Amino acid sequence: MPNRYAFLGPEGTFTEAALRDLRPEAPDDARIACEGIPSVFDAVRSGAVDAGVVPLENSVEGGVTATIAELINGEPLVITGETAVPVEFTLFTKDGTALEDVKRVATHPHALAQCRGWLAQNLPDADTHAVSSTAAAARSLSEPGSPYDAAICASIAGERYGLRSLATGIGDHSDAATRFIYLSRPGTLAEPTGSDLTSLVAFINTDHPGALVELLNQFAVRGVNLTRLESRPTGDKLGSYCFCIDAEGHVAEARVGEALMGIRRVCRDVRFLGSYPRNDQALEADPPLRPRTATDADFAEAEQWLARIRAGYVD
Amino acid sequence: MPNRYAFLGPEGTFTEAALRDLRPEAPDDARIACEGIPSVFDAVRSGAVDAGVVPLENSVEGGVTATIAELINGEPLVITGETAVPVEFTLFTKDGTALEDVKRVATHPHALAQCRGWLAQNLPDADTHAVSSTAAAARSLSEPGSPYDAAICASIAGERYGLRSLATGIGDHSDAATRFIYLSRPGTLAEPTGSDLTSLVAFINTDHPGALVELLNQFAVRGVNLTRLESRPTGDKLGSYCFCIDAEGHVAEARVGEALMGIRRVCRDVRFLGSYPRNDQALEADPPLRPRTATDADFAEAEQWLARIRAGYVD
Amino acid sequence: MPNRYAFLGPEGTFTEAALRDLRPEAPDDARIACEGIPSVFDAVRSGAVDAGVVPLENSVEGGVTATIAELINGEPLVITGETAVPVEFTLFTKDGTALEDVKRVATHPHALAQCRGWLAQNLPDADTHAVSSTAAAARSLSEPGSPYDAAICASIAGERYGLRSLATGIGDHSDAATRFIYLSRPGTLAEPTGSDLTSLVAFINTDHPGALVELLNQFAVRGVNLTRLESRPTGDKLGSYCFCIDAEGHVAEARVGEALMGIRRVCRDVRFLGSYPRNDQALEADPPLRPRTATDADFAEAEQWLARIRAGYVD
Amino acid sequence: MPNRYAFLGPEGTFTEAALRDLRPEAPDDARIACEGIPSVFDAVRSGAVDAGVVPLENSVEGGVTATIAELINGEPLVITGETAVPVEFTLFTKDGTALEDVKRVATHPHALAQCRGWLAQNLPDADTHAVSSTAAAARSLSEPGSPYDAAICASIAGERYGLRSLATGIGDHSDAATRFIYLSRPGTLAEPTGSDLTSLVAFINTDHPGALVELLNQFAVRGVNLTRLESRPTGDKLGSYCFCIDAEGHVAEARVGEALMGIRRVCRDVRFLGSYPRNDQALEADPPLRPRTATDADFAEAEQWLARIRAGYVD
Repeated sequence: MPNRYAFLGPEGTFTEAALRDLRPEAPDDARIACEGIPSVFDAVRSGAVDAGVVPLENSVEGGVTATIAELINGEPLVITGETAVPVEFTLFTKDGTALEDVKRVATHPHALAQCRGWLAQNLPDADTHAVSSTAAAARSLSEPGSPYDAAICASIAGERYGLRSLATGIGDHSDAATRFIYLSRPGTLAEPTGSDLTSLVAFINTDHPGALVELLNQFAVRGVNLTRLESRPTGDKLGSYCFCIDAEGHVAEARVGEALMGIRRVCRDVRFLGSYPRNDQALEADPPLRPRTATDADFAEAEQWLARIRAGYVD
Repeated sequence: MPNRYAFLGPEGTFTEAALRDLRPEAPDDARIACEGIPSVFDAVRSGAVDAGVVPLENSVEGGVTATIAELINGEPLVITGETAVPVEFTLFTKDGTALEDVKRVATHPHALAQCRGWLAQNLPDADTHAVSSTAAAARSLSEPGSPYDAAICASIAGERYGLRSLATGIGDHSDAATRFIYLSRPGTLAEPTGSDLTSLVAFINTDHPGALVELLNQFAVRGVNLTRLESRPTGDKLGSYCFCIDAEGHVAEARVGEALMGIRRVCRDVRFLGSYPRNDQALEADPPLRPRTATDADFAEAEQWLARIRAGYVD
Repeated sequence: MPNRYAFLGPEGTFTEAALRDLRPEAPDDARIACEGIPSVFDAVRSGAVDAGVVPLENSVEGGVTATIAELINGEPLVITGETAVPVEFTLFTKDGTALEDVKRVATHPHALAQCRGWLAQNLPDADTHAVSSTAAAARSLSEPGSPYDAAICASIAGERYGLRSLATGIGDHSDAATRFIYLSRPGTLAEPTGSDLTSLVAFINTDHPGALVELLNQFAVRGVNLTRLESRPTGDKLGSYCFCIDAEGHVAEARVGEALMGIRRVCRDVRFLGSYPRNDQALEADPPLRPRTATDADFAEAEQWLARIRAGYVD
Repeated sequence: MPNRYAFLGPEGTFTEAALRDLRPEAPDDARIACEGIPSVFDAVRSGAVDAGVVPLENSVEGGVTATIAELINGEPLVITGETAVPVEFTLFTKDGTALEDVKRVATHPHALAQCRGWLAQNLPDADTHAVSSTAAAARSLSEPGSPYDAAICASIAGERYGLRSLATGIGDHSDAATRFIYLSRPGTLAEPTGSDLTSLVAFINTDHPGALVELLNQFAVRGVNLTRLESRPTGDKLGSYCFCIDAEGHVAEARVGEALMGIRRVCRDVRFLGSYPRNDQALEADPPLRPRTATDADFAEAEQWLARIRAGYVD
């Protein structure tokens, strides 16, 4: 049976674009649109699909709450891949509608927030209507008797629903991008590629100040750089946070393995979320800083030295 | 002319409850409901109102993106107060509707996420509909010809719109709370009370690893504890973050002032967001750890000692 | 053949007292007095004796330069034990000499420095003469035709050479003590006792600031406390230091082993000097601070967790 | 009355060479040789001389215990200058003595330690005799009826006492140097020159681990690099240390002043030892790493920014 992949639907979302990027070989009917992020997770967990794609963070809005909540508290899945998609918003209408005729614009609230400047300048009198996704806006607009005149969505969505582009690149942040993760069931690990990321969630002990510095030091002393640090509420009470962390390297590497063990010891809890090939394009703006003395060979040399010492030799 | 206060409307939101908590003496017509968080900021900036209240963070969902975006990038306002409101969700219907008759439930997406467990167990077959706020759900339900059978919202909203409570405390997190901030135009500072918080946004220099530890050390060496650390995208590109920080103490205190100057020196940019009386109830679960040697008297003693040394004396 | 032990002589030194403390069962002829600290090291290295005792640090004077130079630069020996001896200085004379007749006092320069206050008050007019050890002063005084009237030395020395005590406890620091180490040839390690110390010398990379903090963090993140940190010149040039460190724990413990490997990786060079039972009496004033989560069981649990993760399991 | 300067005598010591370097204009009779380091301190304290010179540290032996003891515990003086002198040892004899005739060599124990290699190779059968200084060895050798055949000392001493050089550069460390400090009575401070050092002694609170890192961070967060860190016993008990620190910069600079105040607050005690022009030659091997954002202008800018914030302005 061919592989099947869930993504945050409906058809035409940026998430579908991410899945096409990650699995370009998959036929159309292998991509299963799910309504809502939890449904994507559930589809992977149940085995209904082989893997799933959801957004993790956006360069304008930050972490995607529903994804992070599932990663932190849901039944565990592992991240085995990532990609990033530029967020380019387009204003679509139906054939025959001119810009001056647009009175009612539908889109997702986040898109609305990111196109606020353009709308204020170009459609100051139009009403805006929040719907559940940008693709849903496009679909709704395409339906007969739609209450809307226009939709803001990805070009993939406008094309899917046969709409006409009136204005492209209308987002206020021209470099905006969304990062997507590829989720699998636990059981195997991706092979290290030499350019990987490792994701985890750390619940620090808050019984003493400096606990966060302590956590960061666990990485620093092993030469592991962090590429993302995002605090999230634990859901318990105000002022209680956990930290979602992306670190350079693969759990199979000595430096990462030892750092994870250190975090395991000093934190109240830690959840491993996966090691996976880094999408260098996604993070190219932050080239990895080469750590000193943190290769597997460095670790092996130190281990051999320790073994000699423990056997009574001194050099 | 009496004072006027903007809040995130419509009437009946948790934000209105927060405003009533912060300004119990204000008459009903002094509270101005605004549509959308940016509108509250704009009403304060323009002088249309004297102050405004918006949600800042929720113990389940985390930081409120729109509020943080305005604080970071908008024309500056200052935080001059805070409060916290327990998030208690109630299922409201119109008179005569029984639980088994509820087929269409309206509420805000965040409320939906937080009541997911209860809904799955008690209304597994009902459709859920996302609207712009929990209060809007209540208002819509109260209107003749409403497409909904029920609304999930705060009790204040259900009462406001004459609805009937069917089930209370239906949120999955019984301790959930939202923290609200009170916004004023710049120009004066609240007096120190002895139990204050100071908020700021720090944009660290990412040209070297360890920049975050460097930032945290600027507080630590002056005996200033942090009560909140939240990373947010700067909006520039993936992987570029700034840090929203709440620290114990008032900018008028020596330890806080010196820490702010240190951050100013080592960061690419820093924005001061205000010093204001701490709502101890809101954060009571994390009692402040008393810093050693960080009182104004300690700073004054050290300053006098330095002055003696600089004058050539030695003791 | 019975065991033989070298010590820093001549007979009657504090070092002999330390050896008697460490090897109370050794017969008199098993203790070999050596002239000079390097001779003790050489006697152990050559196999002429089985072990040796030298002073390492004094609570008033600090590290003993000759001992540290041998430990750092000499052919390697390992420390397999330690003890501490209170430094109690006694003024000895020959029978018949009264305090007012003392005009010429012999002792070691360090003893002179430590009895300066008592001498100024009680023998303001006496000449002081520096000799190579306090025991040598006693021996010289006991010889016929000695140019001295009195010697300042340990009571063991006065008794050995048949002198008469005139005044005891004449040191300016009543709590003064000297710490001695027991040196063996490499080849075996002392068994861990549960209360051990590990000594090493670390040569940090001075090509970037913060290298010392980096070194200290290698211990801190593994829950290893330091009981001694002493900088010494490397002998290369002014401003070039290495650090002599005593850390709690035994190299056979996971936390110490991992810390040593970390130091090995980040330092230019590191020399292991031994793991040995702690003389709790010697250091009782600084009770060990119990590290969190740094037992071998903690390390084993973290290692098992990592193994599960690397095998693809997630919990 | 012309100025007078004390130095550690007798005539011909390395310390005299240092004084000549620091005060080349002083006539011969302005240089007062003192016996013992405490005597130099006392001569300055009493006003018998205007200033004094003593050795502080040696690149082979480390800190000079007597000097450090006076700086830490004695009646305060301030360091107002420094210099460094290469330690070049020469073997001097009287006219007519050949190398093969040398049987008894006098010198200071430290010189003995530093020439051990040369002596073992070239004079394996000679007896060595420890005297109170290398210059005293030269003086003694020059006296009629001297018990010695040779002296190891500085060339300045050999010349002073009319001896003949048999072998130069006989030290085992060809780059050995000693650093000397210039001591004045408190009352004025040297003007900042742009390349200064500040010396101090810090007594850390040992009631919690990490106190040393805390101390080092007080410098780091203000962009102040350290050029020397030397632990010394406090004299109280084994395991109790204080830290002698040389930091880049002058106490009149904002970064150094603020760092000193921070140390004053977190330490049990701190003693300021002086700010003085750096002898760049002495420390040239460690060029100062330029701190980021730590100039007086940086501090002033941050101070103005804080003043604006405290006045209610926000930018």
